[in-house]
Amino acid sequence: MFTPLDTRIVLVQPSHPGNIGSAARAMKTMGLHDLVIVNPKRYPAPEAKMMAVGADDLLQNARVVETLDEAIADCSLVLGTSARDRSLPWPLVHPPKAAEIILSQDSSVKTAILFGREDKGLKNEELQRCHHHIQIPANPEYSSLNLAAAVQVLCYQLRMSYVDANEKPLKPSIEFGYDDALADAAAMESFFNNLDDVLHDIGFLNRDTPNRVMPRMRRLYNRARIDHTELNILRGMLSGIEKYMEKSGKD
Amino acid sequence: MFTPLDTRIVLVQPSHPGNIGSAARAMKTMGLHDLVIVNPKRYPAPEAKMMAVGADDLLQNARVVETLDEAIADCSLVLGTSARDRSLPWPLVHPPKAAEIILSQDSSVKTAILFGREDKGLKNEELQRCHHHIQIPANPEYSSLNLAAAVQVLCYQLRMSYVDANEKPLKPSIEFGYDDALADAAAMESFFNNLDDVLHDIGFLNRDTPNRVMPRMRRLYNRARIDHTELNILRGMLSGIEKYMEKSGKD
Repeated sequence: MFTPLDTRIVLVQPSHPGNIGSAARAMKTMGLHDLVIVNPKRYPAPEAKMMAVGADDLLQNARVVETLDEAIADCSLVLGTSARDRSLPWPLVHPPKAAEIILSQDSSVKTAILFGREDKGLKNEELQRCHHHIQIPANPEYSSLNLAAAVQVLCYQLRMSYVDANEKPLKPSIEFGYDDALADAAAMESFFNNLDDVLHDIGFLNRDTPNRVMPRMRRLYNRARIDHTELNILRGMLSGIEKYMEKSGKD
Repeated sequence: MFTPLDTRIVLVQPSHPGNIGSAARAMKTMGLHDLVIVNPKRYPAPEAKMMAVGADDLLQNARVVETLDEAIADCSLVLGTSARDRSLPWPLVHPPKAAEIILSQDSSVKTAILFGREDKGLKNEELQRCHHHIQIPANPEYSSLNLAAAVQVLCYQLRMSYVDANEKPLKPSIEFGYDDALADAAAMESFFNNLDDVLHDIGFLNRDTPNRVMPRMRRLYNRARIDHTELNILRGMLSGIEKYMEKSGKD
């Protein structure tokens, strides 16, 4: 049973072993684990281990193969990343669409994403082994993502789409409130009345001069979706003012 | 007039100058340009320039300031990235929601995204200067994104959402066809009839034995949305077979 996080990352002829290590780290931060390296210039190498930091288990389990054919033999969905447009255009997708395609596959479909050489990317015949051409929508004036950065972006997008599809909404969020229950309308109304009284008592508001102070306060606190604890603090502040006024013998 | 790509990236007390350079490169690949560095341990430094590769213009224009206050003084929307949950939870968003919030602002709203120290991230009092806490949904067992990788992810998400909102759909895409017009139903029907004839002529199909070869071929080619050039190639192949049969004197 194949999940989107089992997607294979295939590095085609990387030159710098440090990039292999950084790519492994990028994969592991996003929960991916299947790394295949095609005909690397120099590997294994100490720089790879150094850049992998806590992801050396991924490096240890990585397969090193001679040809792209070996890397993708068991895959029935293959996507290739490339910044360049090709003279024979291939079905082009941005990373979110790529993730959507991968997520929509049957769990029997093994999937691979290919990343080309640091300097020249994927060759035409390599891209033509792919079902889709993924393009990261980089700055047209400077589209030179580091190899590990490109791996990070694709693995992030895959995980983000996977999390969105499978997990509960993030808490606390703006829509779903904090760790505490939200205040109900009756409690809020009693607070607003209390606030109105205090603002008159201290002479900030005057019953004879109409103004929009209270509507603006209502708008502010309603927008902020006050919870119980916050409401108790606000009420406490008001009663603090009232007590102070009593003590100081306001007439 | 502020656009989402003018979002300021603030690095709070980075230790390694190489990370500052990589962060600058990550920003530039995604079209961001406003970099502010708060109280760096060692900067300027040759490693920063080396890792920035073609993004040294960003480094040259970067502001180095003493305090976070100076870095965000003119911003009215501030978001802080942090992997850790906090004991006083702050409004928590994933990067896509953060990008949505930034994109929905009025163009007068200056925005900053804060990134903490490599080892300890943002302090509580720094996160509490933020309107939102951004969490990249990393692997809970290994959430240690490199600083530049975190910058890359956020800048990618911002650019991706911006491109989605502002640009035309990507071409060629699966839905929108390639560089050539799609074949119409009449042309496809004539091709299917031609294919059916040839398959019978070569003895692959037999009028007396019902089968689902033709329906399967119809399903395949309809799914693939054939264009004119492809249809011409397929027709050419069929007539090549017909010519060969004539020449070889099939009875």
